[in-house]
Order: sequence, then structure tokens, then C-alpha cells
Amino acid sequence: MGGNRELAERFIATLEARDWTAWAGLLHPDVIYEIPQSRERIRGRDRYLQFNQEYPGDWHLRPKVTIADERHGVVWFEWRLDGRVDDAMAFFEFADGLITRVTDFWPEPYEPPAGREHLVERSLRASAGICAESQDMSRQGFVWLATRSGAHRNGAPRCA
Amino acid sequence: MGGNRELAERFIATLEARDWTAWAGLLHPDVIYEIPQSRERIRGRDRYLQFNQEYPGDWHLRPKVTIADERHGVVWFEWRLDGRVDDAMAFFEFADGLITRVTDFWPEPYEPPAGREHLVERSLRASAGICAESQDMSRQGFVWLATRSGAHRNGAPRCA
Repeated sequence: MGGNRELAERFIATLEARDWTAWAGLLHPDVIYEIPQSRERIRGRDRYLQFNQEYPGDWHLRPKVTIADERHGVVWFEWRLDGRVDDAMAFFEFADGLITRVTDFWPEPYEPPAGREHLVERSLRASAGICAESQDMSRQGFVWLATRSGAHRNGAPRCA
Repeated sequence: MGGNRELAERFIATLEARDWTAWAGLLHPDVIYEIPQSRERIRGRDRYLQFNQEYPGDWHLRPKVTIADERHGVVWFEWRLDGRVDDAMAFFEFADGLITRVTDFWPEPYEPPAGREHLVERSLRASAGICAESQDMSRQGFVWLATRSGAHRNGAPRCA
């Protein structure tokens, strides 16, 4: 399913490049775009193109994981806007070498509920240069606190 | 990659069944579980099992889309708890026929920003039995409002 995987990869790459002609060329004319979190839907390539062209801000996208099969695909990507960095994901449906449906999710940060501190570690968003030797940080931009060891109570990230 | 796709499918099915032995059997002993939104991480199968066994409430999971390749997979699923129904997704990394990493996302509903009403339709969460003929509702539990036609101003779902 290299073709569908490539469609998913090019979807993000052409958005990031603001290459609107190439981006629209990946989409079926009757593509459906949905954002379940806000209960929004856009019908058709022309309106979907306009939506993205009008979307405010100097946003940037970086793909992290792309998976596709003969019918479905997903890109888990990082988006950046005004100094904020978060994860998002776009699910795709494919037909005849085009994208026929896109469903986006934009998860927001939240504080965990109490009662599971005995099992979890928490991370801090890392500042540049802190704990640069940490594999985890290079992977995700996170510095992990060793909740179980109690190191977090010192307020000091453990970089081991 | 039927094996990895089946791992992803069984991950959700055995969780839903509270079949803890079967569920734990899918996981590498050193599996890493991460929730980026809350910056939480759990190391190891035993703690991850305990986390799920202790998770409060009569939660239920229903898979919607599963995709997998030789290294990565995802299940987009619906979760239900106390009358609430929302989407979530679990990304997987595989090695040697086991799940070595799970990363969950739990997107929350939000209101869309102003300025794109000229392009989008909004949906209402449908009550049982309303507009049952709607394909969209049967697909997602949503009734779509025709924002562009102005029908939403009547406050009445359009079921055509």
C-alpha cells in the first residue's frame, strides 16, 4: 500500500509547504473533512482548500508516525503555533488513489486524575539544553521525572 | 502484517473483556505506556496491568478503525463511561510479535473558533431515535446541521 502511505505523507508535506495545488490534487472532489471534537464537517475539496488557506497563524506540521493500508491511513504529527507544540492526528479514507475522507483530532494537555501516582512518571516540557543527553528528551522534547523514586519531590528532573 | 493488526485488535478486545491474562500476554515485559496529554509514562507490563485493573468506572471500548504495518499500529476507538461517548486512539510499536510501546490520546470536545461558519456544518449529538434514517447518525451518533443553508438557525436538526 505504498500509494496510500505516500498520499498520507504528501498530505502533511504539501500542507506544511502551503503547496495548495499539490495538496488539493491529493483529494477527491467530494472529500469530507470532519473534526469530531468540535462537531464540524466540511464537504468538498474547494471549501476544504479555502478552510486551510484561511486558517490563521504561522502553523507548522511535522510527521511522527504514518501508517496506511488499502483503505485507511493515519498520520500522527506534531503541530507548532506561537511557541506551542502539541500532537495531533489525521485519519484518512482512500479510494482510487485519492483521499475521500479526513478526520482530525487535536488533543489538549490535561492534568491527570489523582490516585495513580504509585504507577506513573510525569514529564516536564524540556527547555533547550537541559538534560540533552536524555534519549527521551531527544525523542519527545520531554524530561521525565522519576515519580516512583521520589525524585520529583525535589523538583529536579532526573536526566539519567 | 496480519499479526500486528491482530495484536492491535486483541489489545482492545481483551481490555473490553477485562481478560487480563490475555491482555498482558500481548505486551512485552518492558512495554512503555505513555499519555502525552498528561505527560504520564508507565514502565513495564506489571505496572501497566495494575493501572488498567485499578482504572475506575464501568468503561467500555469499541474499535472504529485499526491500521498496522510491520512496526507501527493504531486503533481509533470509541470509549463510553457514565453516559459519555468520545473518540480516543492508541498507537502501538511492535517487535517480535509483542507490543513494546503504547501511546494513548484522549481528545476532549471543544467549541470551534469564530470565523469559519461560512465553510462548515455543525452536528448535534443525537438522541436515540431522532433522525434514525440519517446515514451520518448511524455512522457516528451525530445529526448534522446545515450551517450553510441556515437551517441551524431554526434550532432544528436537518435529517435529510
